[in-house]
Amino acid sequence: MSWKRLNEAGAWAPLKTYEGRHFLWTVSEDGRIGTLTLNRPERKNPLTFESYAELRDLFHKLATATDIRTVVLTGAGDNFSSGGDVFEIIEPLTRMAMPELLAFTRMTGEVVRAMRKCPQQIVAAIDGVCAGAGAILAMASDLRYATPETKTAFLFTRVGLAGADMGACGILPRIIGQGRAAELLYTGRAMTADEGERWGFFNALHNRADLLASAEAMARRIADGPWFAHGMTKTMLNQEWAMGIDELLEAEAQAQAICMATNDFRRAFEAFAEKRKPEFEGD
Amino acid sequence: MSWKRLNEAGAWAPLKTYEGRHFLWTVSEDGRIGTLTLNRPERKNPLTFESYAELRDLFHKLATATDIRTVVLTGAGDNFSSGGDVFEIIEPLTRMAMPELLAFTRMTGEVVRAMRKCPQQIVAAIDGVCAGAGAILAMASDLRYATPETKTAFLFTRVGLAGADMGACGILPRIIGQGRAAELLYTGRAMTADEGERWGFFNALHNRADLLASAEAMARRIADGPWFAHGMTKTMLNQEWAMGIDELLEAEAQAQAICMATNDFRRAFEAFAEKRKPEFEGD
Amino acid sequence: MSWKRLNEAGAWAPLKTYEGRHFLWTVSEDGRIGTLTLNRPERKNPLTFESYAELRDLFHKLATATDIRTVVLTGAGDNFSSGGDVFEIIEPLTRMAMPELLAFTRMTGEVVRAMRKCPQQIVAAIDGVCAGAGAILAMASDLRYATPETKTAFLFTRVGLAGADMGACGILPRIIGQGRAAELLYTGRAMTADEGERWGFFNALHNRADLLASAEAMARRIADGPWFAHGMTKTMLNQEWAMGIDELLEAEAQAQAICMATNDFRRAFEAFAEKRKPEFEGD
Repeated sequence: MSWKRLNEAGAWAPLKTYEGRHFLWTVSEDGRIGTLTLNRPERKNPLTFESYAELRDLFHKLATATDIRTVVLTGAGDNFSSGGDVFEIIEPLTRMAMPELLAFTRMTGEVVRAMRKCPQQIVAAIDGVCAGAGAILAMASDLRYATPETKTAFLFTRVGLAGADMGACGILPRIIGQGRAAELLYTGRAMTADEGERWGFFNALHNRADLLASAEAMARRIADGPWFAHGMTKTMLNQEWAMGIDELLEAEAQAQAICMATNDFRRAFEAFAEKRKPEFEGD
Repeated sequence: MSWKRLNEAGAWAPLKTYEGRHFLWTVSEDGRIGTLTLNRPERKNPLTFESYAELRDLFHKLATATDIRTVVLTGAGDNFSSGGDVFEIIEPLTRMAMPELLAFTRMTGEVVRAMRKCPQQIVAAIDGVCAGAGAILAMASDLRYATPETKTAFLFTRVGLAGADMGACGILPRIIGQGRAAELLYTGRAMTADEGERWGFFNALHNRADLLASAEAMARRIADGPWFAHGMTKTMLNQEWAMGIDELLEAEAQAQAICMATNDFRRAFEAFAEKRKPEFEGD
Repeated sequence: MSWKRLNEAGAWAPLKTYEGRHFLWTVSEDGRIGTLTLNRPERKNPLTFESYAELRDLFHKLATATDIRTVVLTGAGDNFSSGGDVFEIIEPLTRMAMPELLAFTRMTGEVVRAMRKCPQQIVAAIDGVCAGAGAILAMASDLRYATPETKTAFLFTRVGLAGADMGACGILPRIIGQGRAAELLYTGRAMTADEGERWGFFNALHNRADLLASAEAMARRIADGPWFAHGMTKTMLNQEWAMGIDELLEAEAQAQAICMATNDFRRAFEAFAEKRKPEFEGD
């Protein structure tokens, strides 16, 4: 394991022992895969002011974690998340002054920013209800798996708000196209799992019994791969979002040259030449 | 109804009594839904210099309309529009000097800009021929419904021109993807209705007998919803087109905070709590 | 044929007599269609330092070619390309210093830039293996045709590198969507031909026996069309990549006004009026 000198300075820290307060956080034996479970199943795993804040803080911490390489994001009890609770979130918001409102929308936007900025790939395992801010958490993940029963609704319009929530007007159209995104955001209707797969929102559908294991298998596959380079892939998928073609080509020339200067690149070549599986160390 | 003081100053005006000269304009009883019908069915509803100019002006007026919340855009007689007429538009263009040509392309581009900038959602009901500038009017709408018989052709190449007409090279790829857009723009071939649905250009297909009623039902559903917030959704879908992820998240934090400060947001919550349908007033 | 004065100055030159060194280059009888065949079939047409450099140089030359209007890009022997060879490319890279690495990634990025910047439409005919830099050459083409047997893998992650190679993180998501692109780039798995067609990567699938002829027919159709305007379409598809809606509408107003000032536009109208096929001359 590398990062020695900077770790000694306290710049990075492991997240294996983190204890979730408003959701469940468990880490695989080897410390590589963290599983974040929204766990108020009796309410379909709603989000609260407290859980937004903790999500933001945990994804911030992941940016400097020494151990975790991928994250599985899921919900307890056959639902992903019902989003911001009407009585715990919406009602207080109707009584807030503008500075408080903006502080709130910035906090929820910061959850998405932190999910996009951490180097870990976030693999969402989504069953049942996936609504409102829950749908946003799915959208902000890197890979999305669902069951045939999953219903995904960007239902902000149902509470009198804009579809412009936590990046939905900018990010959703890049996943499923402008026309389909417009319909979902103007109507708040549930996208079926089949539509989600056909439109490119979900990477695949699995039966309920297989969903979590499938997501974990994908998280494991990525975690055991060249994770420094994977982090660069994620950075560049974000970074090139609004670049012109000239600029993105130069940006990738630099990004890939950095990866070619890593020991992991050499390790991958040596393993290939010796017909064995490479062991990546992230340096 | 709000907007009182600004309306008295003449900043806004109703469009219920507008009389279309080069197309038909009718408004629903309650003033919320305007229906724009291209109506020279014997010629498959071509566009002329005059109808471009009137389209531009009407969509400009919609930006400050006090009544209209959504627009249904359709064509008379089982066709949407054959686009710019070869003899009424193309022939004169072949004899114009550059400043006139640029004035023309800017005028047609301004139709698209005005369609994107007005807060009303434009629901296109598209049957039969949808070609050239007609296909662009469809593309510039917010939601698109068609029949199995609809044929949509971006046929600028057929008259010796570029596919870069009224925003097609920039907007069409965001709806159906770069590869499919390239094929349509280089060949000018008709996209079938089935392809259009599969590729995300059409939100759904309906039988000819049901098309207009389905589009009207969607326009009604949106018009009776939180229309100030819907207008913000449209603004942000446009506004975030070329923003980076950081910037679009801040932009949405501000946009949604504005919506949370409206009375309509409170009305939606109160209706939810009292298990009744909300009445939105746009303030 | 036009371009007379500038051609005399040596600013442009024909490519009919170009002789490929590291790939095959043949030109149709009339000089309009160039066919570039990667031709080391016994190794599935890998790329080498030399072939990257020659591809870059040939596509640069195409930007000022007087004859070629479209390019067919294909591979010999039922495979498209296996990409950068592990022993001829990867191994030397593992021993290079940073300035050399960056020079290499800039050279490969320049192949994509030159493919996007030349006015010719590049029609890729893709069979069998289409991997690594081979998949990038497909991605950087304008139209893509494949066989049911084609397997397309962005497999940079398999050699310990980022998916950010030659523009993949910026360009691939615009063709197939962010979610699907992410999966391909993080796993390096092969996209099946059926997925490629469903996701909009391939414009159509053809049987092996028909693939090349179909690609050639499309190249011919475009080559015999309004090729100056086609070049403008390509320029604008690139140019508007990261423009806002206001900016792209003005950009297209200018681009199309340029095309309306050409003799080819008049020729197309006259041919239409006389019910005959137009002959385009590119001026």
